[in-house]
Amino acid sequence: MNWDQWFTDRVHEREDAGLRRILKPRGAHDEVIDLAGNDYLGLSVHPDVRRAAADAALTWGAGSGASRLVTGTLELHRELEQELADFTGWPAALAMSTGYHANLSVVAALVGKGDLVVSDGHIHASLIDAARLARAEIVVVPHNDAAAVDAALAAGMAGRPDRRALVLAESIYSVLGDAAPLSALAEIAERHGALLVVDEAHGLGVVGDGGRGLTHLSDLAGHPHVVLTVTLSKAMGAQGGVLLGPASFREHLVNTARPFIFDTALAPASTAGALAALRHLRANPALPLTIRTRVDALADQLDVEAPAGAVLSVPMPSPQVAVAAQAACLDEGIRVGCFRPPSVPDGISRLRITTNAGVPETAWARAADVLAKVVEDHR
Amino acid sequence: MNWDQWFTDRVHEREDAGLRRILKPRGAHDEVIDLAGNDYLGLSVHPDVRRAAADAALTWGAGSGASRLVTGTLELHRELEQELADFTGWPAALAMSTGYHANLSVVAALVGKGDLVVSDGHIHASLIDAARLARAEIVVVPHNDAAAVDAALAAGMAGRPDRRALVLAESIYSVLGDAAPLSALAEIAERHGALLVVDEAHGLGVVGDGGRGLTHLSDLAGHPHVVLTVTLSKAMGAQGGVLLGPASFREHLVNTARPFIFDTALAPASTAGALAALRHLRANPALPLTIRTRVDALADQLDVEAPAGAVLSVPMPSPQVAVAAQAACLDEGIRVGCFRPPSVPDGISRLRITTNAGVPETAWARAADVLAKVVEDHR
Repeated sequence: MNWDQWFTDRVHEREDAGLRRILKPRGAHDEVIDLAGNDYLGLSVHPDVRRAAADAALTWGAGSGASRLVTGTLELHRELEQELADFTGWPAALAMSTGYHANLSVVAALVGKGDLVVSDGHIHASLIDAARLARAEIVVVPHNDAAAVDAALAAGMAGRPDRRALVLAESIYSVLGDAAPLSALAEIAERHGALLVVDEAHGLGVVGDGGRGLTHLSDLAGHPHVVLTVTLSKAMGAQGGVLLGPASFREHLVNTARPFIFDTALAPASTAGALAALRHLRANPALPLTIRTRVDALADQLDVEAPAGAVLSVPMPSPQVAVAAQAACLDEGIRVGCFRPPSVPDGISRLRITTNAGVPETAWARAADVLAKVVEDHR
Repeated sequence: MNWDQWFTDRVHEREDAGLRRILKPRGAHDEVIDLAGNDYLGLSVHPDVRRAAADAALTWGAGSGASRLVTGTLELHRELEQELADFTGWPAALAMSTGYHANLSVVAALVGKGDLVVSDGHIHASLIDAARLARAEIVVVPHNDAAAVDAALAAGMAGRPDRRALVLAESIYSVLGDAAPLSALAEIAERHGALLVVDEAHGLGVVGDGGRGLTHLSDLAGHPHVVLTVTLSKAMGAQGGVLLGPASFREHLVNTARPFIFDTALAPASTAGALAALRHLRANPALPLTIRTRVDALADQLDVEAPAGAVLSVPMPSPQVAVAAQAACLDEGIRVGCFRPPSVPDGISRLRITTNAGVPETAWARAADVLAKVVEDHR
């Protein structure tokens, strides 16, 4: 087999299907207003956060030098883990190098062959991969359908009291911006002896009391049938992922989660950056309200439903129109996301607009006006 | 099911078996000489590398804010990719957030259900997970046994010309420090139309002309049946992983590798730190010779075989003695690794000693004397 030819054929196939995607590097002093990324609070570029990340690189070095169990665990990791656990209301936390890794770790460490994973239909790719990696039986249920989760657990656990089962959900979903029925899912998980794994990637820093997330808002922090995964690369402005749960859960992961054990520890600058962002958020508990105010007003202006989180999803009539609308925004200096099949859970192309509390008020107002006009022109 | 109880039971099981592992955070100004991590050239703490990482955090922010395809690709990523491709002799490179991710990405993007993965018995956990994730047929062959790879490919490809097959090997193995027969493996892969995936995690910066790795030394850079994965968290002193191969390979990964597509881009400080380390290495091509000189002399002093890479593996008579020897080193201010079953490929407990070119000459000489005495006392 000629591999280069095989790769090239795949490239042409995607091109013919209009699905070829290309990386476009951006500069450091990009003048565009970025409403495409996930830096919801604008903290990745906050002076305190930049400074903390830079100081950590100077103090600790550019890397942590080893895996966590060998010699890569820094006092910085411990500080971040303790403060994040305290903030979100959990006994213990464990930081990893990416949120993807946190998701791979939690599923593979809790279930194996013969066990059951009940997954929401809109779940993130990392949790789907995690369930595959664990080689558990995977049942995908319709999006946000608690009754379907209940039925899947009832069917899968009947007569099998020793079977372990996980329910996978995101608190706020990335593409549609809607919220999961967490209280119902936790009650169902508890009734069946299952564990609900909630991915708060898009909830932390965005919803709940002072940005503590939807799990905290739903009074589920510390619930015996719930554990949490969060990312440090969205509202926390850095890189990494963290798992939260009981101390025994943390210890179990330290000893069994292969993506944790066999990976170099999170870099000092990312760890310190996330810690500074967390401290900034704690000192400014009203910050997530800026997201709320902006997203509600913009939803109104664009005549779409206000989302539970920070992401506005605006349906477009076709993939081509969605791409044209995105280009029209960029012409006006506003970068928004564009999701097309096969990257949308329901086949509907859409603009994905991130509310960013870090954009100055005048720039935000201008962006909202541009968006309103572009969306009107392309509907 | 009571999950907390289940976790706690697992903790006690490990404790009873003497396998409980605990994280021990280290401080920023740790006086211990670290011969346990993988910072082979000491570059994670080199002033130029620290400074570059810090400057990037100040210039770009603490995080890259989004996945690479959305808006997370920075000019910094492009620079690092181009310089690393140029250095190692490949047409194209693609950076990811960890080396684990690079390995997950490459396997899952190249093979799927029905395809074949022939894996060396000592391969890293990330490549084993990658093969599982790809759901390909996995054949594990004895360590460094090229004939067994040949036989596995012959059996697996017979009468199936369209079947895709990968051969997975590390250039330098992490625990034993030995080298793979890369030229033989590449010839075998080519003969069967398979692709050899070489993990240079422990080769880059350590072996080959100026630290270009074993693949380059074996004249396999750019070979049509070879691709490369490297890590930025070992000799490059930062965090991240990079895949190297033809431009068509890179483009295929950008469009298909889920752990790449659905993960936030590598943080600016880590990217810039690795780039500065690479530039330092290029400006100081004799740096890897310090590793060579030290590891050969130390192997002689400890009366063990000199390894191909930077890691010295010293067999110990039992897990208990290995732990005692490690503790005796630490009492003298030298941190070394200790590998026990089940983390060793052959069941033999050992000290794992990393040669670090960044340790000053007098400290290195003292460390070597301590190691010689401790090993003699514990043999």
